[in-house]
Amino acid sequence: MTNLDAIFSPKSVAVVGASTVPGKVGHDIFVNILKGGFTGTLYPVNPRAKAIASVRAYPSLTDIPDEVDLAMIILPPRLALNTVKEAIEKGIKAIVIVSAGFKEVGGEGARIEKEMAALCHEAGIRMVGPNCLGVINPRDNTRLNASFSARMPKPDNVSFMSQSGALCTAVLDFAADRKFGFSKFISIGNKADVDEVDLLRYFHNDPDTEVILIYVEELQRGPEFIEVAREITGGDRPKPILVIKSGRTSAGAQAAASHTGSLAGSEAVYDAIFRQSGVIRVNSIDELFDFATAFAYKNESALGKLRRKVPHGNRVAIVTNAGGPGIVATDMTVTSGLVPARFSEDTIAALRSHLPSTANVNNPVDVIGDAAQDRYANALSAVIKDEGVDGALVILTPQSMTNAIGTAEAIVKIARRSHKPILCCFMGIIDVSAGVKYLQENGVPVYRFPENAAKAFGALYKYSRWLNRQELAPYRFKHDRAAARQLIGDCLERGQTYLNELEGTRLLGYYGFDVLPTELAKSAEIAVEKADAMGYPVVMKIVSPLIIHKSDAGGVKIGLADADAVRIAFDQIIANAKAFNADAQIDGVLIQKMAPEGREVILGANRYPNFGHLLMFGSGGVLVEVFKDVTFRLAPINRNNARLMVKSIKGRALLEGYRGMPKADIADVEKNLVRLSDLVTDNPEIKELDINPLLVHPEGQGATVADCRFILKPIEEA
Amino acid sequence: MTNLDAIFSPKSVAVVGASTVPGKVGHDIFVNILKGGFTGTLYPVNPRAKAIASVRAYPSLTDIPDEVDLAMIILPPRLALNTVKEAIEKGIKAIVIVSAGFKEVGGEGARIEKEMAALCHEAGIRMVGPNCLGVINPRDNTRLNASFSARMPKPDNVSFMSQSGALCTAVLDFAADRKFGFSKFISIGNKADVDEVDLLRYFHNDPDTEVILIYVEELQRGPEFIEVAREITGGDRPKPILVIKSGRTSAGAQAAASHTGSLAGSEAVYDAIFRQSGVIRVNSIDELFDFATAFAYKNESALGKLRRKVPHGNRVAIVTNAGGPGIVATDMTVTSGLVPARFSEDTIAALRSHLPSTANVNNPVDVIGDAAQDRYANALSAVIKDEGVDGALVILTPQSMTNAIGTAEAIVKIARRSHKPILCCFMGIIDVSAGVKYLQENGVPVYRFPENAAKAFGALYKYSRWLNRQELAPYRFKHDRAAARQLIGDCLERGQTYLNELEGTRLLGYYGFDVLPTELAKSAEIAVEKADAMGYPVVMKIVSPLIIHKSDAGGVKIGLADADAVRIAFDQIIANAKAFNADAQIDGVLIQKMAPEGREVILGANRYPNFGHLLMFGSGGVLVEVFKDVTFRLAPINRNNARLMVKSIKGRALLEGYRGMPKADIADVEKNLVRLSDLVTDNPEIKELDINPLLVHPEGQGATVADCRFILKPIEEA
Repeated sequence: MTNLDAIFSPKSVAVVGASTVPGKVGHDIFVNILKGGFTGTLYPVNPRAKAIASVRAYPSLTDIPDEVDLAMIILPPRLALNTVKEAIEKGIKAIVIVSAGFKEVGGEGARIEKEMAALCHEAGIRMVGPNCLGVINPRDNTRLNASFSARMPKPDNVSFMSQSGALCTAVLDFAADRKFGFSKFISIGNKADVDEVDLLRYFHNDPDTEVILIYVEELQRGPEFIEVAREITGGDRPKPILVIKSGRTSAGAQAAASHTGSLAGSEAVYDAIFRQSGVIRVNSIDELFDFATAFAYKNESALGKLRRKVPHGNRVAIVTNAGGPGIVATDMTVTSGLVPARFSEDTIAALRSHLPSTANVNNPVDVIGDAAQDRYANALSAVIKDEGVDGALVILTPQSMTNAIGTAEAIVKIARRSHKPILCCFMGIIDVSAGVKYLQENGVPVYRFPENAAKAFGALYKYSRWLNRQELAPYRFKHDRAAARQLIGDCLERGQTYLNELEGTRLLGYYGFDVLPTELAKSAEIAVEKADAMGYPVVMKIVSPLIIHKSDAGGVKIGLADADAVRIAFDQIIANAKAFNADAQIDGVLIQKMAPEGREVILGANRYPNFGHLLMFGSGGVLVEVFKDVTFRLAPINRNNARLMVKSIKGRALLEGYRGMPKADIADVEKNLVRLSDLVTDNPEIKELDINPLLVHPEGQGATVADCRFILKPIEEA
Repeated sequence: MTNLDAIFSPKSVAVVGASTVPGKVGHDIFVNILKGGFTGTLYPVNPRAKAIASVRAYPSLTDIPDEVDLAMIILPPRLALNTVKEAIEKGIKAIVIVSAGFKEVGGEGARIEKEMAALCHEAGIRMVGPNCLGVINPRDNTRLNASFSARMPKPDNVSFMSQSGALCTAVLDFAADRKFGFSKFISIGNKADVDEVDLLRYFHNDPDTEVILIYVEELQRGPEFIEVAREITGGDRPKPILVIKSGRTSAGAQAAASHTGSLAGSEAVYDAIFRQSGVIRVNSIDELFDFATAFAYKNESALGKLRRKVPHGNRVAIVTNAGGPGIVATDMTVTSGLVPARFSEDTIAALRSHLPSTANVNNPVDVIGDAAQDRYANALSAVIKDEGVDGALVILTPQSMTNAIGTAEAIVKIARRSHKPILCCFMGIIDVSAGVKYLQENGVPVYRFPENAAKAFGALYKYSRWLNRQELAPYRFKHDRAAARQLIGDCLERGQTYLNELEGTRLLGYYGFDVLPTELAKSAEIAVEKADAMGYPVVMKIVSPLIIHKSDAGGVKIGLADADAVRIAFDQIIANAKAFNADAQIDGVLIQKMAPEGREVILGANRYPNFGHLLMFGSGGVLVEVFKDVTFRLAPINRNNARLMVKSIKGRALLEGYRGMPKADIADVEKNLVRLSDLVTDNPEIKELDINPLLVHPEGQGATVADCRFILKPIEEA
């Protein structure tokens, strides 16, 4: 028994703070466990009561003569702290603290929460909460309803964890209304100890959990979340994870002031986390239920085993008895990343033979308003056998000849025989309820509107794509890591919190980026000398710690073709810089070999507390700022991620060759993204990094860093 | 009594094809009218029955001894046609043809449908259908349920029209489940006569209709729809219109092959229609109900009159008893175009005095999980009085101390006293049902999830913006319309279906566009002569009907600085054109004064059958093709539309001045959009028109047409 087993499947539970007063949390939770039919032993603890709900009460935890697995604590902070100490003494295996008044109110509450967590950690005990709704395990071998909610959901194979307790109550209500069951249900409140990562690990190994739902406001452990979630969603016995994440707008605050940062709010961090870990993000509670219904989908197969059905492709057949909803479904199919299937000649012949002449035998198949169950059975059976069909949506609207229950029975029969997912939309609530109930009882997902069914199918397909993604062989880079450590170490040692362009260029060079020959000149004469040595044309740029956007300060001159041009440019740049900021320390002027032409893209990285570096890739120039054509991933990334990053910006059309332009060297861009990831992972002191632009040359000719900007910050200060 | 009154409020109804067999449409519709408590007289017509459902039957319409207002016809096509003739003879005022088998099956059915419509038109009778579900008017003075559906909705002030009959049944089901009522409910099927435009006009004048809902697959009369809908949504006694439009993806087919057309599927046409007419497009049936609930919103005011509440601004206060849902609502508030309100000091002081110290007195206000109704009342009352608050969302999650009914009563009381909209979210279905029912009965919109409430509030605000949009004074242009008619007439007369650049430039000039001095040269010598006359630098372009994308053919040379350059360029262009397409007829080379620099935008127009010209505006260059940064409106547009078009593209940031660039002459771009609208409206023979690019100069310096392309097509061929 692991420590989390003691939370979900305890053999004995003590409720400390159990109360005799109905309506009080301490009373209700106790009674809910009692009436829920808990299969273990239940002990109320209350020094001032003989019995709670007729059950003999104990004055304290230590007075209980037997071993106790789980203590539920419903007490104000100071008493809760004492009880935690007692629980540790008593050898209790796990603790759930329901009460509020801790971290969320600050001050002493926050201090006590920290102390309790530390005590539990030291004792090797897991603690849930504080400020949570409790824990539910409806499975027959436990039947634990240690929650505020009088209603125990029915047992099923979906597990749910929520940062918000209030949401839990509402979710239980809706679940009851939709006849939706759960395997485990837990409210984790302030997450002083047990958090999403712990629970993911637990649900991963839980044979009763097939789908994991999360409501989260903020994650504290980004990289661990990605690691665990990736293993769960795509590992040996994959389980889908659906997340609803709120707090999108309150976030932004963290956005760094820098150019890169202004594009990447912390929303970008969460999107990156979910994308990289195969977690499906949903937009509303409705969608959470809709998708969970599709993922929990199971039919007894011929072998009697329950299976989740994931489509092999995105070609969907639609069978409907009404044109309008068929069109809605077709629309939403396309919007959800699916395509309407094209039927084979055999399929069309079969449909034609079974359906009346007025029926539409192409997709969406219209079995016509007066269809009874036989037409549905024949049509669905025909399309689901088609090799060009990866799954089906069946739409039923109540009309005069409609037999909802008969049609449901026919669908279930066909679904049992097929590996392909079949999702239903029985429109209307009242007239079709018998059919809906039959489908639900037999594990066929059924929705109220065609758009919901189509979106759920889209989520199934998205998951299928994740499961079947190709893994590219990793690059074999030989970075000069030692030189890089030395360079950054030297800078930090002398208190320098940025890299100038010369240093930046050198650092990128250590990681295999193509950089331009770059030299610093402190006088016009030296500038000419350096330019002569590297060959014309050259570019010149001011080097000054106070001048970040060099162009705005007139600090950049390009296309300098000879020694005279270099000499004049040197003087102008110095004059412009002084005019721009008289106080700016000027380190000199950079002489750089003019870059060969290329299409502009931008690469960046930005370090976030708790999450590490967020990598950015996007179209360069005005496109990045006006169109926000960028994508983000958390470091480290592999070659797959790099490929997807390049694929996911709109400006990729410009890289792939456009209006006579040759294809750009996308392969080298992908390499550079992994180089960037390696660079920031090896050197976490890099707080911000922009490569803007990276000039991408035609295929086979690589890409050149034309400008870069680095800000350093020792990690202790993160 | 207008003819549509005879459909919705007949004094007498004959059901032709009434049947004695339960389950048959002809039986069910008759019985539904009978049992629905129709306040007029009902006559079954069936030559082979004595009585239907105990009511004396007549062998034919003409055998009915009394006057009949409305004939419901449930008969196969040929018999239906005969009955229509009889109905006209009898002097019946309106006809609803329920049966299917007409246009939708083609052949004879389609022919008969056309004939029936023509007969009715000639006789001045309105006809609904065929292939429809029927008509419902639940108001007490009529109580007509002439539909398939046994369920009569409760009377309310929302009217619904649907192109899909099947959807109607489902909508009635959901309405019953949501306790949602209707004023008029009609299924219009094939729309052989009565269509959306007719019904909009009728509902506009119907005192019992306050909100209009439409389900449409395709519109046949675009411009009329816009005209009528604009008058309804924004006229003297405005009524909101909500539309659900399906068939998005099947459309595309119409997209013209041209460059402009490839960006504008017919979806763009519908988006333009709805946008220009103030119609709110919804994405799903759920959303249709959600928004309709908010728009139907009415409270008795102090004066006892029902009012719709539309917010004056977008600043929303949120009152919740749980943090999580409050965050979800805040997120969705922002996503829906609203902003969380900032409270005044007075408001915060009032909140602080009423709420416990742990409550959050900033927005979203958290009254804490153990709040009973008094805390809700105090908090809502305080925030709704704040001058900086335009409306409120109240969120309730069922917790131990929650009193759903008490809270609902408090909300209703406050809502009655305030002009500001208050929308509620009572989470959970079962525990909160009493409160939900009380809110519904008292006209306060209530939702199941905070995101739905916030989205509905966003729709209210969007409508408020439409109602309160400013009207700009129109431009006073002096177009040379006669010269334009002449030019196009001449072209068409000689069978020319395009304008070459010289003609195009001239035509644009007639409408006040700034065009460049442009001359045609057939030899290098003439080219030099023309260039000398207009001054250097010049641009040269091939003129050939077979070379559309001139650059691709090497047919464009720019920045020619002197006579020598012009001479060389002439020969090169001719050589390139011949190499590109040896068969292409070459009309010469255009000499054009080189355009002053400017930011590139694209203007276009494309004629669609039934709708007229769709105007396009977008960012120019690669932006239009890669980023699809374009917006569309149907012609004619006014100055307001032009302004909104420019505002709605992302690339406007480039026009407004960017990184040191001065602000561009946006005012002139707006003028040019109205010029474009005038041009195509006056000259409908213009099938396609691209101005690509229009070069926009700094503010006050106008914009120059750098290139244009016209395709003509006589309107008969449309």
